[in-house]
Amino acid sequence: MGVKITIVGAGSAVFSLRLISDICKTPKLSDSLVSLMDIDSEKLRVVHTLAKKIATRFGASVKFESTLDLEKAIKDSNFVINTALVGGHEYLEKVRKISEKHGYYRGIDAQEFNMVSDYYTLSNYNQLKFFLTVAETIQRFAPDAWLLQTANPVFEGTTLIHRNVPIKVVGICHGHYGVVEITEKLGLELEKVSWQVAGFNHAIWLTKFEYNEEDAYPRIDRWIEERSHLWKPVNPFNDQLSPVAIDMYRFYGRFPIGDTVRNGGWKYHRNLETKKRWFGEPWGGADSELGWKWYQEQLARVVNVMKRFANFVEENPSADPFDEKVYDRILSEEDRKLAIHFSAEIGNMLTSSKLSGEQHIPFIDALIGGSRRRLVLNIPNDSKIIPGIPEDVIVEVPVIVDEKGIHPEKIDPPIPQRILKMYLWPRMARMEWALEAFTTGDRRILEEILLRDPRTRSHEQVKKVLEEIMNLPENIEMRKHYSRV
Amino acid sequence: MGVKITIVGAGSAVFSLRLISDICKTPKLSDSLVSLMDIDSEKLRVVHTLAKKIATRFGASVKFESTLDLEKAIKDSNFVINTALVGGHEYLEKVRKISEKHGYYRGIDAQEFNMVSDYYTLSNYNQLKFFLTVAETIQRFAPDAWLLQTANPVFEGTTLIHRNVPIKVVGICHGHYGVVEITEKLGLELEKVSWQVAGFNHAIWLTKFEYNEEDAYPRIDRWIEERSHLWKPVNPFNDQLSPVAIDMYRFYGRFPIGDTVRNGGWKYHRNLETKKRWFGEPWGGADSELGWKWYQEQLARVVNVMKRFANFVEENPSADPFDEKVYDRILSEEDRKLAIHFSAEIGNMLTSSKLSGEQHIPFIDALIGGSRRRLVLNIPNDSKIIPGIPEDVIVEVPVIVDEKGIHPEKIDPPIPQRILKMYLWPRMARMEWALEAFTTGDRRILEEILLRDPRTRSHEQVKKVLEEIMNLPENIEMRKHYSRV
Repeated sequence: MGVKITIVGAGSAVFSLRLISDICKTPKLSDSLVSLMDIDSEKLRVVHTLAKKIATRFGASVKFESTLDLEKAIKDSNFVINTALVGGHEYLEKVRKISEKHGYYRGIDAQEFNMVSDYYTLSNYNQLKFFLTVAETIQRFAPDAWLLQTANPVFEGTTLIHRNVPIKVVGICHGHYGVVEITEKLGLELEKVSWQVAGFNHAIWLTKFEYNEEDAYPRIDRWIEERSHLWKPVNPFNDQLSPVAIDMYRFYGRFPIGDTVRNGGWKYHRNLETKKRWFGEPWGGADSELGWKWYQEQLARVVNVMKRFANFVEENPSADPFDEKVYDRILSEEDRKLAIHFSAEIGNMLTSSKLSGEQHIPFIDALIGGSRRRLVLNIPNDSKIIPGIPEDVIVEVPVIVDEKGIHPEKIDPPIPQRILKMYLWPRMARMEWALEAFTTGDRRILEEILLRDPRTRSHEQVKKVLEEIMNLPENIEMRKHYSRV
Repeated sequence: MGVKITIVGAGSAVFSLRLISDICKTPKLSDSLVSLMDIDSEKLRVVHTLAKKIATRFGASVKFESTLDLEKAIKDSNFVINTALVGGHEYLEKVRKISEKHGYYRGIDAQEFNMVSDYYTLSNYNQLKFFLTVAETIQRFAPDAWLLQTANPVFEGTTLIHRNVPIKVVGICHGHYGVVEITEKLGLELEKVSWQVAGFNHAIWLTKFEYNEEDAYPRIDRWIEERSHLWKPVNPFNDQLSPVAIDMYRFYGRFPIGDTVRNGGWKYHRNLETKKRWFGEPWGGADSELGWKWYQEQLARVVNVMKRFANFVEENPSADPFDEKVYDRILSEEDRKLAIHFSAEIGNMLTSSKLSGEQHIPFIDALIGGSRRRLVLNIPNDSKIIPGIPEDVIVEVPVIVDEKGIHPEKIDPPIPQRILKMYLWPRMARMEWALEAFTTGDRRILEEILLRDPRTRSHEQVKKVLEEIMNLPENIEMRKHYSRV
């Protein structure tokens, strides 16, 4: 009998289809039941329709169900993947707009070492609350299930769940693929590279980078010296070898990997001009007003394309939507131009046997006795994987996963003290502050966090911005929660 | 045979005479040799002259020597008390002035949770360097001696020495006397109070406060409710029950003690107006431009009075300078008006058998087999006295001292998590950053610290202020040191 895999927030089409495509390509999972859950029935329909077509294409006997009911989706699951963003991007933008009105460029949730524009840790009461709801529902209706915490903030969320709900939880992100990018840029063969990354989610560092068993950092240094002046971003997210990454490397002594590059301090983020200088023109990185607008537009276009795909399938049940000609017809010229990566990805998803690169399905496969896998996961620091970090904090580290469970690697060489004390400690403190606010409902903690914010000019400003955010119709519960103390 | 006690920076008259008076009043130390060392021979003469008169007055057979030579002073010492401020207040004021010109109100060393105006951790290269020089001199010329680290920054300095020089070191401050002040304000008998404080130097919290074995915090709450509106500071340092202390208590859940009250965040320190609101009129606390000016004036006057005392003694070798009439003649009306505390203290020093309240001599007395004592000392967190703080960090905690050594008390109840994570962690991180800068000579760390400073508007500003500070004639060594990386 196959396993039951639940995707919470399945309406996020590209992400869900990546997972579904991976499931269909994984022999051990060919009998699975995949439960798609979302509160948006229209988006759910799109994903459900396309999911079935993908399964057919790959000849997989995976079954799908879709539901608006969280309990039903989770009941008897073996694996629950939570990817839901409560309130959607719309909520994030509302909060950002209010924040900027009160002098908080890029929003109050943009904080030192946490500049990623949809990684809200302060104003996201509903999101954190929902994390707990999912975890508690698992505890009741599928107590043996693994929760794969994928929705942001992964660091805060996974730590919160780990401390409060006695279920099996792991945080999953894909940020460490920056290592592959560096390897390719240096013209190295990936199989000969031996690497480790360690830190927190969106805060990981290339602690080990060897080629043919020799330190390969000198190769990075050479690339920087000889080639970095030629660097230019091809999209706002293209920052792995940007000036900011190089500057962070020079200061901290190891390379920041993936979204870590986006998570420097205000030095790189003070304003658009500063962002452009460090992340390159024209966008100034993903987390500038320009970069994020680009991303939002891409996202909207992708959602639209997905809908058109689904409509086509429903109107032409017998046609093959993956036929080159149909595919051509569905994607407009504009879609192609903007969504280079996206269309390549669709192509891969539908036509190749290659997995998407997301770690979720390989993780599940390894646990149920498929292939043993090396992954980078967010797990408790129980066995002091990173010394100097408390045991109840979630760290992102390389692990081996097999039928017996998750086996963290020894981080060797260890994380340099400068990274630990000047980067990880402050980032960890912010995680703790956000959770202290959320778990106590003490509004003064949110105030205090903002009082320590360099954009703050007065206590009055702090009170006003929080007041306006909490007055949003979405935040009735949040407001109530933060009136308790 | 008596012990040899060395005071480095003995020119600081009031402080040295306090210690000397304590030594003369401590039977176990009556045969001691006290070595007074300073680089200012004039100040040294004043202290030496008065020291001898104090010994005579108390019939103590303590011997004194004074020297400008550090090695000579330290050689064969049993105890070395380092109280020297390299460059004096003059240097601090120079740096502050430069800083303020570049937009750093109260100086670049005024930082979140470290607002005390002579507790320099960034621009004090010479001071930290001298800490190491003293420690290394002890290691060579008096390897069994205890170093009593008294000069600020005690937290950074004691941790630095502990990690780098294998000698016996303890940090000593008097901040915990705030507990006595609270006790008096509440009208409680001190003997019936059971209390503990814990944290770092200038960052300690009243974790335990019982009266007749019952929690006495409700008594504080009642005082706040009924009496706090009547509070008014009698001098800039009079802040133990100020609005800022009460606000910190309300937020953190325990009372901040002593200089901890001065060490809140920018919420209380943003500008003079803010300081006045929280620390009271007219000064806005010790660390405002007004409060610090008051302190500087007091200090200058005290130095002057001491000099007049010494001159009198030298001109009238047979007269008793402690005769009420002489005393009257030496202190002007102005001296009396300004230096209320000071003159009371002089009176006590010269006429009473009561000890000064400084912990140094009781500490020494306890170690050499005099009275067993309960003190509050700065010692390594070796035995995890404060959980959640690394073992190589110096913590300030209550201890029992006897012939066998220092025995820390168990902190029970423990420090609340909110204090640990929202106050002690950030303060500790700043200590680590300052030491990382100092030990590596990497100027970029000083830049990075300022880049994280809310007063910073641009990288340019940071570079300029550091450049100007390092260009001071006092900072030739510092400049060289910070050019290494």
